[in-house]
Amino acid sequence: MFDKSMKPYERLRALLADDLNKVSELISLRMQSKHAPLISDISSHLINSGGKRLRSLLTLASAELCGYEGIHHIQLAAIVEFIHTATLLHDDVVDESDQRRGASSVNTLWDNSSSVLVGDYLFARSFQLMTEVGRLDILEALSDASAKIAEGEVLQLSASENITTSENIYYKIIEGKTAALFAASMKVGGMLSNAQDNIIEALSSYGNALGISFQIADDILDFTGNEAQIGKTLGDDFRERKLTLPIIDSISKADNKELKFWRRTIEDGNQRKSDFDQALEILKRNSSIDYSKKVAINWSMNAKESLSVLPESSVKNILDELADYVVFRVD
Amino acid sequence: MFDKSMKPYERLRALLADDLNKVSELISLRMQSKHAPLISDISSHLINSGGKRLRSLLTLASAELCGYEGIHHIQLAAIVEFIHTATLLHDDVVDESDQRRGASSVNTLWDNSSSVLVGDYLFARSFQLMTEVGRLDILEALSDASAKIAEGEVLQLSASENITTSENIYYKIIEGKTAALFAASMKVGGMLSNAQDNIIEALSSYGNALGISFQIADDILDFTGNEAQIGKTLGDDFRERKLTLPIIDSISKADNKELKFWRRTIEDGNQRKSDFDQALEILKRNSSIDYSKKVAINWSMNAKESLSVLPESSVKNILDELADYVVFRVD
Repeated sequence: MFDKSMKPYERLRALLADDLNKVSELISLRMQSKHAPLISDISSHLINSGGKRLRSLLTLASAELCGYEGIHHIQLAAIVEFIHTATLLHDDVVDESDQRRGASSVNTLWDNSSSVLVGDYLFARSFQLMTEVGRLDILEALSDASAKIAEGEVLQLSASENITTSENIYYKIIEGKTAALFAASMKVGGMLSNAQDNIIEALSSYGNALGISFQIADDILDFTGNEAQIGKTLGDDFRERKLTLPIIDSISKADNKELKFWRRTIEDGNQRKSDFDQALEILKRNSSIDYSKKVAINWSMNAKESLSVLPESSVKNILDELADYVVFRVD
Repeated sequence: MFDKSMKPYERLRALLADDLNKVSELISLRMQSKHAPLISDISSHLINSGGKRLRSLLTLASAELCGYEGIHHIQLAAIVEFIHTATLLHDDVVDESDQRRGASSVNTLWDNSSSVLVGDYLFARSFQLMTEVGRLDILEALSDASAKIAEGEVLQLSASENITTSENIYYKIIEGKTAALFAASMKVGGMLSNAQDNIIEALSSYGNALGISFQIADDILDFTGNEAQIGKTLGDDFRERKLTLPIIDSISKADNKELKFWRRTIEDGNQRKSDFDQALEILKRNSSIDYSKKVAINWSMNAKESLSVLPESSVKNILDELADYVVFRVD
């Protein structure tokens, strides 16, 4: 379907390399703190642990798609990365993660307090940057997204360990915690370019669908992935007793014996070492991995469909392929 | 110096009661979440635990001083309270507090994760509200303050347990963690009223000086206060090994035996039950409580001095008295 020698986000990165370098420079500059050296230490650790800057890329791509010719897309691309990094720092505290992007997480290297406070700092910095762009409507879109992210995370907190969690609740959670910022990253590129409403809407829909597809794939990879590739330990979600789509689907199809298994491992949190393998077996038996893939592929097709209103271009093609890639990386 | 039968903030509250009720209604409304009931539960707990709404009062007072006649001061007063509540939620995680305003803290009643995420939600909500006010300059002032708060908190983190912390570092910490939001609360009232630059500057200076004075007094009260009155356990700062002004001053005057005591209790964190009483004894012996009071009173005088450019009014008088009160409540 696409050239497998280079991943779509790598091609996007190559295509937008000049802008992306400027984004990285701005991020490095604005993550620093004059007064609190600890902030600079932690920021450097985060910068050097090398995320894919996917959200920044989406903003740059979106502005490019709309023919934007100003300079503010650099700031917006830095802003979405700041918001993302802030939520990662707070997630690590919530999840008690000790790995992030294949490296030790900040809460392990420093402590929970540092993760919380440096996250707050980056979040505040992102809003400072937004005021520099000078567009209240964009600020509104990004503060809406921020509220939605936090809402999704809180919802996830309430849903974890609860085996009656429905697929609908799951979609609300991932729309918040993942898709909201993907959607906003695309949307603000269009807004900045003063694109027409239907174009902005299409960009936002693409981001939303891509985010949902991406998160479902991520949740599948927690069961079937390759640890070196995904940069974290397999089975983290299972051990944290998170209700992700594969488990939710499997519970809906469970016989009495399986239900007893999920009650013990997820509801009661009484897990043994062999349980993860057994969970995987049950998921496969109930075709819950396949079902989850199907749903992810559907969202990936929705994403591509959203872009159909846009004229053909190399960026558009890569975004199409990116929508395929986020699902097909599961195989 | 002022009518002791009613505290200045009570009189301010009485004077601005109509507006303050509107602020409370707006806070209740905007703290809710449609999707995540946990947010509404926690928000209600926070609202009902009854803070003094001091920052909201400052914004309302400032707008009143400048003759503001619009409706946006209600939103601004809600925003500063949202930011404050968000930082309290995160502070409780950082400090591992189990008491807040005399009631159990959110991280005790729920958990750290809820404190972190609901704090994030309120912070995002505050920026949503800011976009409704439609003033980028005000947004900038509030995002600057938010970054400064986080910076102060991070600085405090690095300074805690470190007995070489200087008075200068201490002032930077409290300027961030406390005074920045006091200053912004006053400043935005003036900005909203389109007051002259020197007036806005005066309002901001008042807030800054009031905040510093307030925080020093708070740090003194942690040693000498009345538990029922301050709504938390005495000696919390000492047990958390925070370097507050009384301790910093006492360390600078310490003989060898005292230095050994501070090394053991603050640096090494090897504390016994009787240590708090001994700390108090040392502080008194070195006049460090008296010295801290003197510094706090100086800042309180600075606060009043800042207001001198404003014409006489009942609100101005109460703000003057408030500056006295934050220090004299120590006695």
